[in-house]
Amino acid sequence: MCEASAYMMEGDQPELIMEAVDTVEPEDGGYKLINIFGEQKFVKAVIHSLALVDHKLFFKKPSQ
Amino acid sequence: MCEASAYMMEGDQPELIMEAVDTVEPEDGGYKLINIFGEQKFVKAVIHSLALVDHKLFFKKPSQ
Repeated sequence: MCEASAYMMEGDQPELIMEAVDTVEPEDGGYKLINIFGEQKFVKAVIHSLALVDHKLFFKKPSQ
Repeated sequence: MCEASAYMMEGDQPELIMEAVDTVEPEDGGYKLINIFGEQKFVKAVIHSLALVDHKLFFKKPSQ
């Protein structure tokens, strides 16, 4: 399975938002994350970068 | 390996930009895609959505 962990870039250390993310869909000026367990989380953020082989997604606040 | 194919959403059919994408990094108002073979491609676009278990990344033009 190729799910990934989603992190918010804030301060020195990226903060884990959600593990095992499958889909990321645009919603209300942010994104809705859905993981392989069907759990959903909304983040008011933009996608900063992806590192897929490392299974990592990085988000950041829109104002940065 | 958890690389993915990157598509541009334009018209009816998403257009394949690059296969086997590993990292996606912000650059000059768009993103630099790097695949597992070390090939690079710049896209002037935003990230629309991700479907990681399906190995797909969707970009769209910023103006849309």
